[in-house]
Amino acid sequence: MIIQLAKNTDLSEKEDLKQKIGTFGIKVTEVRTQMGDYLIGIGNKDFDIRKIGHLKGVQDIHIVSDDYKLVSKKWKVKPTSIDLGDGIRIEDGSMAIIAGPCSIESEEQIARVIQHLKENNIKMMRGGVFKPRSSPYAFRGLGLDGLKWWYEQAKAAGIKIVTEVMQVSQIEEMVDYVDIFQVGARNTQNFNLLDELGKVDKAVMIKRGISGTIEELLQSAEYVFSGGNEKIILCERGIRTYERASRNTLDLNAVPILKSKSHLPVIVDPSHGIGIREFVPQMALAGVMSGADGIIYEAHENPEKAYSDGQQTLNFQQSALLAAQIRKTFALRKTFQLL
Amino acid sequence: MIIQLAKNTDLSEKEDLKQKIGTFGIKVTEVRTQMGDYLIGIGNKDFDIRKIGHLKGVQDIHIVSDDYKLVSKKWKVKPTSIDLGDGIRIEDGSMAIIAGPCSIESEEQIARVIQHLKENNIKMMRGGVFKPRSSPYAFRGLGLDGLKWWYEQAKAAGIKIVTEVMQVSQIEEMVDYVDIFQVGARNTQNFNLLDELGKVDKAVMIKRGISGTIEELLQSAEYVFSGGNEKIILCERGIRTYERASRNTLDLNAVPILKSKSHLPVIVDPSHGIGIREFVPQMALAGVMSGADGIIYEAHENPEKAYSDGQQTLNFQQSALLAAQIRKTFALRKTFQLL
Amino acid sequence: MIIQLAKNTDLSEKEDLKQKIGTFGIKVTEVRTQMGDYLIGIGNKDFDIRKIGHLKGVQDIHIVSDDYKLVSKKWKVKPTSIDLGDGIRIEDGSMAIIAGPCSIESEEQIARVIQHLKENNIKMMRGGVFKPRSSPYAFRGLGLDGLKWWYEQAKAAGIKIVTEVMQVSQIEEMVDYVDIFQVGARNTQNFNLLDELGKVDKAVMIKRGISGTIEELLQSAEYVFSGGNEKIILCERGIRTYERASRNTLDLNAVPILKSKSHLPVIVDPSHGIGIREFVPQMALAGVMSGADGIIYEAHENPEKAYSDGQQTLNFQQSALLAAQIRKTFALRKTFQLL
Amino acid sequence: MIIQLAKNTDLSEKEDLKQKIGTFGIKVTEVRTQMGDYLIGIGNKDFDIRKIGHLKGVQDIHIVSDDYKLVSKKWKVKPTSIDLGDGIRIEDGSMAIIAGPCSIESEEQIARVIQHLKENNIKMMRGGVFKPRSSPYAFRGLGLDGLKWWYEQAKAAGIKIVTEVMQVSQIEEMVDYVDIFQVGARNTQNFNLLDELGKVDKAVMIKRGISGTIEELLQSAEYVFSGGNEKIILCERGIRTYERASRNTLDLNAVPILKSKSHLPVIVDPSHGIGIREFVPQMALAGVMSGADGIIYEAHENPEKAYSDGQQTLNFQQSALLAAQIRKTFALRKTFQLL
Repeated sequence: MIIQLAKNTDLSEKEDLKQKIGTFGIKVTEVRTQMGDYLIGIGNKDFDIRKIGHLKGVQDIHIVSDDYKLVSKKWKVKPTSIDLGDGIRIEDGSMAIIAGPCSIESEEQIARVIQHLKENNIKMMRGGVFKPRSSPYAFRGLGLDGLKWWYEQAKAAGIKIVTEVMQVSQIEEMVDYVDIFQVGARNTQNFNLLDELGKVDKAVMIKRGISGTIEELLQSAEYVFSGGNEKIILCERGIRTYERASRNTLDLNAVPILKSKSHLPVIVDPSHGIGIREFVPQMALAGVMSGADGIIYEAHENPEKAYSDGQQTLNFQQSALLAAQIRKTFALRKTFQLL
Repeated sequence: MIIQLAKNTDLSEKEDLKQKIGTFGIKVTEVRTQMGDYLIGIGNKDFDIRKIGHLKGVQDIHIVSDDYKLVSKKWKVKPTSIDLGDGIRIEDGSMAIIAGPCSIESEEQIARVIQHLKENNIKMMRGGVFKPRSSPYAFRGLGLDGLKWWYEQAKAAGIKIVTEVMQVSQIEEMVDYVDIFQVGARNTQNFNLLDELGKVDKAVMIKRGISGTIEELLQSAEYVFSGGNEKIILCERGIRTYERASRNTLDLNAVPILKSKSHLPVIVDPSHGIGIREFVPQMALAGVMSGADGIIYEAHENPEKAYSDGQQTLNFQQSALLAAQIRKTFALRKTFQLL
Repeated sequence: MIIQLAKNTDLSEKEDLKQKIGTFGIKVTEVRTQMGDYLIGIGNKDFDIRKIGHLKGVQDIHIVSDDYKLVSKKWKVKPTSIDLGDGIRIEDGSMAIIAGPCSIESEEQIARVIQHLKENNIKMMRGGVFKPRSSPYAFRGLGLDGLKWWYEQAKAAGIKIVTEVMQVSQIEEMVDYVDIFQVGARNTQNFNLLDELGKVDKAVMIKRGISGTIEELLQSAEYVFSGGNEKIILCERGIRTYERASRNTLDLNAVPILKSKSHLPVIVDPSHGIGIREFVPQMALAGVMSGADGIIYEAHENPEKAYSDGQQTLNFQQSALLAAQIRKTFALRKTFQLL
Repeated sequence: MIIQLAKNTDLSEKEDLKQKIGTFGIKVTEVRTQMGDYLIGIGNKDFDIRKIGHLKGVQDIHIVSDDYKLVSKKWKVKPTSIDLGDGIRIEDGSMAIIAGPCSIESEEQIARVIQHLKENNIKMMRGGVFKPRSSPYAFRGLGLDGLKWWYEQAKAAGIKIVTEVMQVSQIEEMVDYVDIFQVGARNTQNFNLLDELGKVDKAVMIKRGISGTIEELLQSAEYVFSGGNEKIILCERGIRTYERASRNTLDLNAVPILKSKSHLPVIVDPSHGIGIREFVPQMALAGVMSGADGIIYEAHENPEKAYSDGQQTLNFQQSALLAAQIRKTFALRKTFQLL
């Protein structure tokens, strides 16, 4: 049960309300985000909401039977729009393109990528400065220095920064330089990290877990929302299966299913989703047709020399071509009557 | 190693050739299809093909390191075109649409589906008369009678028949009434059935196994080809994973990968691939963008009353809309430079 | 619903009964096995069985809510014992050991294996004469000749034969030489084959599908039982997962779960279950402790020279050691109070 | 490549050595643990180790081709023994038993569990005070207070504490009260957490990831070891597959494979591995036979009233019986010649 509180509800009214609801055997969690105040009630599923609908402070009540509540479309039918400033948005009905290298490597590299993005009217850049690596001996990224170089150039160019945060202690040092915090596939269920990302007023893009279910992805988003941050983007990036001919199995089924269950925008990552450069464009366009609100892919001036993920990274020529194809495909999709 | 034999090679020349090759420690399998004669050599990978290239009867020799040989693109670069007659083809560069009910239910049902297909210029009809069911107590299909009713109407309407064959003994009784034999996902590795389908001159569409790899699908196709039948279509229909929000996980990665490895056409089945009616169109269009040469989906006048698979079956209005969208999406795809 | 018919029920009584039950909206399937006559009723789950319990011919009625009926423990609590003759049984409370090569290779090989089995008091021998191979160019077994050589020697030695049947047409030619028909992991849902195996009076061992669920294995067994054959053995042989360090993932969880759901005996195949010779003994003994009624493993005089599966095959010394360890482990297990 | 340094190597000698090795194109990582000093060399696989074997400070050099180095058996053949004090060890050749509730609930609950453990000579107790939960609204554990109550009672009783740490910031506040830090299945690839656990001198038990490979588990262990902590225990707890009849698929294949690849002890968790109380004992004993060095299972005075995981938790009577059976099974296993 979600109770949306009226804008002007004061503290004592809220406490009264919580106490009253508690008497019906319902456990209440209070949620305050950038956008509003909510009470989440768990337990006593047969509860008749008319018993509290008239109480002072209650603006609206919704029964949500899913295990996730605030991210459910059963409560909020209107799609969530993520406003990154400068007229840049990630939202249902538009097509976000996010491109950039796997790893941030140098100031020169950043400059060349930004140049490429500007030439192709791409407004968001991805790149890793803290890299999760399965081996402790592998390159772990340039860290905060890399992020600061990047920020300086991106800000000047009007380009938004999407980068992975790996642990709680990084949030504070990164927050001024990041537009979208990415939660990686190995951290989708790092609940402490999600809790803390609920406390910042920056967008958070949560990648589906390496073998995470659609339900778990939504519950992870619920952590961020219930922590206080409504600016959440979901990302399908492929799941682990028995198939070995591709790096992951891109599960595009997840796109319409997520869109039908949640009001949050959904992005597709074809680079990790198939892991083979030659086939990234096809899977990106398939992602557009499946209903995605955006595509995030890896691009590098010289993929063969990239520090990581070169085998799935497009060069600038391929990237330019793909960006145009994504836009044309999306334009066609908009003419269709799809859910 | 594949040795393509010259058209006019006589029996004794062929025997000489086989004996000669055998002396190099290579096991030879003879393959004769509708299109040509081949010798497949296995073993002795370091063999120098120049030793036999000049022999009488040898038209061409190809080294194919894959476990599948005749279906590999390493040997035959030109895409295979499946000609069903009446100008109807399944092939790279065109977009086949196959629609129809899960089960053939009655003569009246057939008539209504055919009417719908004609109105929408759809030339191929799917439907089951022999149904594989996990429970022995479930409806197992109308059998041969149903197929004969169907044949009569389809022939009159110029529509081609795609239907599943479940066992060897059915091939002979079905062959006169079928245009494309479908091998179901539970029979992808029924090697005896594949062997026998190699002996008929009808197209064979092999569905990927329930948890079959891309490699295994190609090896199953190799069975049919090496049995003597080159008219093979591959079908991605979703694989079994841990995810429970969809019936199967439609693996569209398989489309560009199959197309890059084999010269055979590839079809996508979004109905089984996601199993949820509302999302079949999105996944069909995603399949088109992934590079498929055709889409096969379930359609029924009244899906709620279908004998089986109703939850994933489109009604005629949805089907008409989808067929048009498939064509528009394919038209756009053809303007792109994709592999 | 399962209705067990009284022994002396005549045809007209049975027809009366079927008609009467049909009037309650229940679809009736008649099953006649070696052991008894049954009517299986599907539909109308709220039916009050007291309405027919008193009718002539009804010996017993059981409500079985599972999708499988006759193989369920909800109906038949007493474990099924498979009697192979000569005092050799596969059943709950004893420990069957089945050993032998992957492929039958020659009369000499058979002789040496039988000698080994006799020395170690092993009463059942496995071996393939029809081999399912993913490549059409691989060795497909010695066929019926091999089976006949084997039969002659096995019969003389009092050893029972376990071998795979791949298609319906083989059943008749094999039936006189086989004690247990094995249905391989690629044929677990070959429903026609299961139907036909329901018509013979030989034991049938069904291997779990390559990615088959426990539920599907029981439904496949239901095919054989409802076809008329109660002599069914279930075999856990590992499932396909993402893990690549072993050939399959041996799912020993399946053993106690199958034993709790069904009255049929359960066998474990550690050779295919892990696929690495050095670790077959540990997994065999783990299988015993998980509650298996038997172990089937691959043994060969010289595994390095075996035609197939050598990497997971024990030599005779290892096999002798393992057989003794299996027996000791089972003796210990019998002293425990396990389900 | 692993270079084990001589005990008395001083700083300048070590620097000389690092520089010298670097000249051969090898990237060197320095590792200092409780037990010794190492240099890990990555790159230049064809390097001839005789070129540095004679240098001052080098005690031993090993080539390790695996992606994990320090945890590999190729380097250190002798099994690692984890000494927890008071004569309590986890090591190859003995059988550790760890039991206790899913969640620590109260001081009274702790007292009763400890009483049960003492009566059954069980020396290690598991229990959660920080609980990872997929829903943000679920019970998240008693936290540090619960741990302190537990510590007081456990210390008095001579019982060791095994409990999950979820984030870096908890390590310092927990370290004085914990004997074995557990890394949960959702944190197996939380590399920052692993890094930090490398800096404490307490044992670390790493659970296999929810769909983690055996290789990834070893690489996660490598993080802890290369961070400076050799006291690592590996835990198989079931993986995520398509099978729905059990909570997870307990992959006992992992036990002999891990033991053959690494010198670290391996523990099996049958409670999470199957998730069904009635079958936990069978899977525990199967784990013993598969070669485990210990079993960790959930026990509670009254499982039906447990805050979490009640469905897979044994009561004290079942736990007492199982502990005895584990010991008897292990005693039998020791008489066998298994790898």
